[in-house]
Amino acid sequence: GSGLLAAERAKSNLPVGRLSELLFTKEVLNRKQRVLDVLKSEKVFDKSQNYFAGRIDRFGTALARAKKLRNLRLKHGWDLEDFRTANELVSEPGPYALHDSMFLVTIKEQGTPEQHDLFLKKAEKHGIIGCYAQTELGHGSNVRGLETTATWNPEDKTFTMHSPYLTASKWWIGSLGKTANYAVVMAQLIIDGKSYGPHPFVMQIRDLKTHEPLENIHVGDIGPKFGYNTMDNGFLLFKNVKIPHIGMLARFSRVDPKSNKYVRRGSPFLVYGTLTWIRSTIVMQAGGVLARGVTIATRYSAIRRQFQDRDAREWEGGENQVLNYTMVQIRLLPLLAATFALHFTGKSMMNLYQENQKKMNAGIANADSSKRGAGPEETESGSDLLADLHATSCGLKALSSTIAAEGLEVCRRACGGHGYSSFSGIGPWYADYLPTTTWEGDNYMLTQQVARYLLKSARSVLNNNAPTNDTTRILKDFRSRADIGCAFDILGSDCDLVSAFAWRVSFLTFEVLKHRDEQKKAWNDLLVDFYRLSKAHSQFMVVKNFHSALSENSTREKLDDDTLQIMHKLFRLFALHTLEQEGSEFFASGACTVKQISLARTNAVMKLLQDIRPHAVGLVDAWAFDDWVLDSSLGRKDGKVYEDMFYRASELNPLNWITVDPYPDSEVLFRRDERSKL
Amino acid sequence: GSGLLAAERAKSNLPVGRLSELLFTKEVLNRKQRVLDVLKSEKVFDKSQNYFAGRIDRFGTALARAKKLRNLRLKHGWDLEDFRTANELVSEPGPYALHDSMFLVTIKEQGTPEQHDLFLKKAEKHGIIGCYAQTELGHGSNVRGLETTATWNPEDKTFTMHSPYLTASKWWIGSLGKTANYAVVMAQLIIDGKSYGPHPFVMQIRDLKTHEPLENIHVGDIGPKFGYNTMDNGFLLFKNVKIPHIGMLARFSRVDPKSNKYVRRGSPFLVYGTLTWIRSTIVMQAGGVLARGVTIATRYSAIRRQFQDRDAREWEGGENQVLNYTMVQIRLLPLLAATFALHFTGKSMMNLYQENQKKMNAGIANADSSKRGAGPEETESGSDLLADLHATSCGLKALSSTIAAEGLEVCRRACGGHGYSSFSGIGPWYADYLPTTTWEGDNYMLTQQVARYLLKSARSVLNNNAPTNDTTRILKDFRSRADIGCAFDILGSDCDLVSAFAWRVSFLTFEVLKHRDEQKKAWNDLLVDFYRLSKAHSQFMVVKNFHSALSENSTREKLDDDTLQIMHKLFRLFALHTLEQEGSEFFASGACTVKQISLARTNAVMKLLQDIRPHAVGLVDAWAFDDWVLDSSLGRKDGKVYEDMFYRASELNPLNWITVDPYPDSEVLFRRDERSKL
Ligand SMILES: Cc1cc2nc3c(=O)[nH]c(=O)nc-3n(C[C@H](O)[C@H](O)[C@H](O)COP(=O)(O)OP(=O)(O)OC[C@H]3O[C@@H](n4cnc5c(N)ncnc54)[C@H](O)[C@@H]3O)c2cc1C
Ligand SMILES: Cc1cc2nc3c(=O)[nH]c(=O)nc-3n(C[C@H](O)[C@H](O)[C@H](O)COP(=O)(O)OP(=O)(O)OC[C@H]3O[C@@H](n4cnc5c(N)ncnc54)[C@H](O)[C@@H]3O)c2cc1C
Repeated sequence: GSGLLAAERAKSNLPVGRLSELLFTKEVLNRKQRVLDVLKSEKVFDKSQNYFAGRIDRFGTALARAKKLRNLRLKHGWDLEDFRTANELVSEPGPYALHDSMFLVTIKEQGTPEQHDLFLKKAEKHGIIGCYAQTELGHGSNVRGLETTATWNPEDKTFTMHSPYLTASKWWIGSLGKTANYAVVMAQLIIDGKSYGPHPFVMQIRDLKTHEPLENIHVGDIGPKFGYNTMDNGFLLFKNVKIPHIGMLARFSRVDPKSNKYVRRGSPFLVYGTLTWIRSTIVMQAGGVLARGVTIATRYSAIRRQFQDRDAREWEGGENQVLNYTMVQIRLLPLLAATFALHFTGKSMMNLYQENQKKMNAGIANADSSKRGAGPEETESGSDLLADLHATSCGLKALSSTIAAEGLEVCRRACGGHGYSSFSGIGPWYADYLPTTTWEGDNYMLTQQVARYLLKSARSVLNNNAPTNDTTRILKDFRSRADIGCAFDILGSDCDLVSAFAWRVSFLTFEVLKHRDEQKKAWNDLLVDFYRLSKAHSQFMVVKNFHSALSENSTREKLDDDTLQIMHKLFRLFALHTLEQEGSEFFASGACTVKQISLARTNAVMKLLQDIRPHAVGLVDAWAFDDWVLDSSLGRKDGKVYEDMFYRASELNPLNWITVDPYPDSEVLFRRDERSKL
Repeated sequence: GSGLLAAERAKSNLPVGRLSELLFTKEVLNRKQRVLDVLKSEKVFDKSQNYFAGRIDRFGTALARAKKLRNLRLKHGWDLEDFRTANELVSEPGPYALHDSMFLVTIKEQGTPEQHDLFLKKAEKHGIIGCYAQTELGHGSNVRGLETTATWNPEDKTFTMHSPYLTASKWWIGSLGKTANYAVVMAQLIIDGKSYGPHPFVMQIRDLKTHEPLENIHVGDIGPKFGYNTMDNGFLLFKNVKIPHIGMLARFSRVDPKSNKYVRRGSPFLVYGTLTWIRSTIVMQAGGVLARGVTIATRYSAIRRQFQDRDAREWEGGENQVLNYTMVQIRLLPLLAATFALHFTGKSMMNLYQENQKKMNAGIANADSSKRGAGPEETESGSDLLADLHATSCGLKALSSTIAAEGLEVCRRACGGHGYSSFSGIGPWYADYLPTTTWEGDNYMLTQQVARYLLKSARSVLNNNAPTNDTTRILKDFRSRADIGCAFDILGSDCDLVSAFAWRVSFLTFEVLKHRDEQKKAWNDLLVDFYRLSKAHSQFMVVKNFHSALSENSTREKLDDDTLQIMHKLFRLFALHTLEQEGSEFFASGACTVKQISLARTNAVMKLLQDIRPHAVGLVDAWAFDDWVLDSSLGRKDGKVYEDMFYRASELNPLNWITVDPYPDSEVLFRRDERSKL
């Protein structure tokens, strides 16, 4: 194995370090290394039993790690970025995750200064440990449908928290199952028999000393999951539990204790922005998430040899690296291209988000705070300035997490039988990542929001309004040329390739608009079209952003010409492979001819695979994953795949400390169990 | 939940029982019930801790179950079908699985009567317990590349079994890790320094009393996997281990102990047929495998309500069953159609196989016994009679297991957040099924064999040979009309729909043939085309078989007209949805127009969803899964989803018997652990 990877690296002149710096910056790379050194030196982060341990042991270890991370943060004076980096390197969801994120953020953003004093300070010191309890057994996506009630009691100025049905039980709440003693609870605010919709309440749920549940609170862990088993997702039921007036997070709305009236103050535009921010983070991370699988599968395919090339002459001998088979390349290399495409797209989303923050802070938006959280909000966009960013983030969240999740499984399967071993490192990672396709807006449902926005934009174009952003601009361009048609040289010009994606999404938008506005089709009958539309729009965004990133001066300065060439090839591979997969839409929209699509497939893509192949190992090396982070036998940087597989199986595997009684006539199962010696 | 499912069942007039009988026959349904009753009454099959237990406990329980199944078989005098049914109902791979299948079958088929006496008799009584050890750390697909050697020693008439490299270690061998004391080992036969390729050897590996490994044998479990954790897949290394002459399975080839020469006798056509049989079984099972996920997701979608219909008037109130959303329907209903499509295809493959058995038994074939087993054999088809069946089984194995595996994940995701819980029952089932896409021929690699066969058939047609089977017939038809073109009424005629699939595969075959024979493209450069070709051919086979099954008198007699109508709609849904997904190939081949494809998508498929929707619950009920088998909260027949989720989480979940210490300053993790009370 080692020899083969060394040869791969020698074969390519790719400046791997420079490429890593382009992706991450030197500063971030240094930070990673610094934090990694600390983690590696702590025994609790030893990963050797991760793949063997059962649920409860894994959870216990995860709790120990969460505690240690917090203590290391204090000890080394880590800032927030250091701390995030540490969590990322540990690469498993831990029992403080929701405390550190949604619990703190929600109190910070939606609490009053008084509430900050009361809750935030303690929380920041881990004097209390919290979670974010929105989803219920019966309701996730539809936040308005939550059944938990918070009823205002004018007599004693308290709220009564209650779960009227079993389906009102909070469910899936990260860190709630075992760890949290506090929770932000989303509940229907009821004053004088009238419901004001879901609002956030901070409340204690377990005793701070004994850690036992408080009276009339039924709380626990929801059980094993496909992945995410280091996290204690929990359930929570209330039987008329009273909490004080201060429990309702009151920055944007409150109950006036004197008049017993509901009072709104200001608008939670920050909250609205947070949602966009979270989704942008998911887009940003998707590239790196996928890059793990691609790194593992690419390195393994370069050391795995199987069969001789069928056309090879006898004397050429030796078995072929499976990475040389085009059927392996077509599975892995477009995903390799996708890692970069998603990375650059995420970066540009983040930049856009930051630019918009300023405008947002001016307080233009007018959205509803109850929409915060895991489900997709069914609200109309509150701010015109934000609308484009919001819609784009919905669509890209859906597309990028789907590409990453499904791509990881492609990588796993590309490794053949060994991909199925936990030691491949892909399966466990994939299983932990999967919920990203469901939370922060189910990927299928988010597409409705993108479509709604595109329809609105198209109507505005039809009304001859001047374009105000990219979306209206491409729609306008399309309208002006719809009768003339187009003739994009998708194989010869990168700009034309991007334009073909714009053309297709514009075409689809006006098609769908016709269905909705002219043919008056029911919303429900259009959901499948919306999904396609959203996918088309998001693919356009990714292609466009990848292309722009490569055209920027800042990029061109950092890379030599050869490397820039390879990056352009990755761009074309991603774009043409996507175009070919969606061929019938491109053709139907007139964005290109059948002949072009067929040439893209049989010539252009195959040629790109061939050109990129020699640099495949270098390109994944640029993602700079440490072996400790990957925790994969197949993805080892030194190629010692088989040695590592064997070592883990024979030396670390506790099942091998047991001898069974194999005969059906004996009721004895384990006749010797020496696990204690391990 | 209950009310909603009852309403669904009341709404549809589908004769569920009759449909079940069509799928399975009354006899099989009765058998299932009879065996199920026995299993349910045995404590060891209690499933309540399945989702909670760690690897070692699960393996221990699986061993206990395997023992019990064998004892029940004796006690109740179960025949082979009863026993298979019992294993299917238990629904987890167990430690005797390879003993009961490949170990016994290989000895039976490849052993001499003497070897049957020596090994088979003991094995059938579980006096010895075996496995099938072919794959190695370094070689799976490429069986010829195996490195384990069996060197003939003329002096003492023995073989020396040896693993010259670490990569020669047997790996992935089911039942070997802990359970087996015997193994069929595939090893390179070496006589007088010359290798004769891989041959099967029977040998003892563990002591029959102590169950400790014999001298110079290193054997153990390979560790945790993505699924299949109730099975002890193992590794095995030899250091010059001698076995007697009788160890080499000698029905088809042997070493003559007198002359020390390699002797072939007869040809292992049976073995060759077995491969086809195994693949046909996979096709047959794929429908049922997928049907579990579809049953669960469909029932859950009928009780899950989320959001009001956006176009609904206020006073219509209430939340919508998510099964009413077209975006949910388009994910589930084509898969529902696929369950039937695959089932009927599998059945017809099995029939074809049985018909061919007779011809095979005449001994026409001439294949190589070393090709047996898990990898796809790179052999030319040994028998012209079998070639079509063989190629078809390769392609269909790949297509059907891909549809089933990927379909299960679609079902899981369609359940939103709750799909991620182990209690959904889909995830664990999916994880156990996944290796089917990799073993018995990696799904990507098998497509090369299909393509090779189609190319051969096309050459024969070009040479003006008369068609000898269905494949050459459709190729010939296509040739005769290639210049004229076609005009299939895919939306109006079911026969035309089937013909469109035939047209497309014929078109692609001749395209690829041009690339290979005229343009002399390298084999490796065509792998992606081969993959597409194989997929097209297999999709044609499924569509054709589904259609034929519905046209048969035996089917038409069993179903009333309404039900037959619905089955035809399922056929059309499967065919048109597939066609639409592969639109650009259908269009490029001229099999239909862009307009037709667009109508198929926007009109025909949407209308079919609407028509099938009312019968969705009835159709999955027809698959007749007992709740005990599904072991799913979401898929409960009575719809008590939330109650069951809650019960499992709060009552069965061992993590809830633990109280943690949540504070980072405390090193205590579990401060109270009352699991023993559970
Ligand atoms: C590992 C994990 C951790 C989580 N952590 C937290 C947490 O800490 N706090 C918290 O509050 N929540 C948490 N959640 C919950 C998560 O946010 C929800 O599961 C998610 O929002 C999906 O909602 P749902 O489960 O209700 O799906 P549903 O809305 O029930 O979706 C079911 C199906 O119906 C479809 N569907 C629903 N409505 C429509 C519609 N209008 N149109 C078309 N299709 C529709 C969906 O696409 C889906 O296929 C977590 C979930 C998971 C899996
Ligand atoms: C759960 C499980 C149980 C098993 N049980 C047994 C058992 O009991 N006994 C036993 O003997 N084996 C067993 N196996 C092994 C199994 O049969 C092999 O893993 C399988 O045959 C795949 O071979 P491989 O792992 O060598 O894949 P590889 O051949 O290494 O494939 C790796 C990758 O290369 C690609 N590739 C390889 N060659 C080519 C080519 N020529 N052209 C194009 N692409 C190519 C493949 O598509 C794949 O993507 C088991 C495996 C699993 C996962």
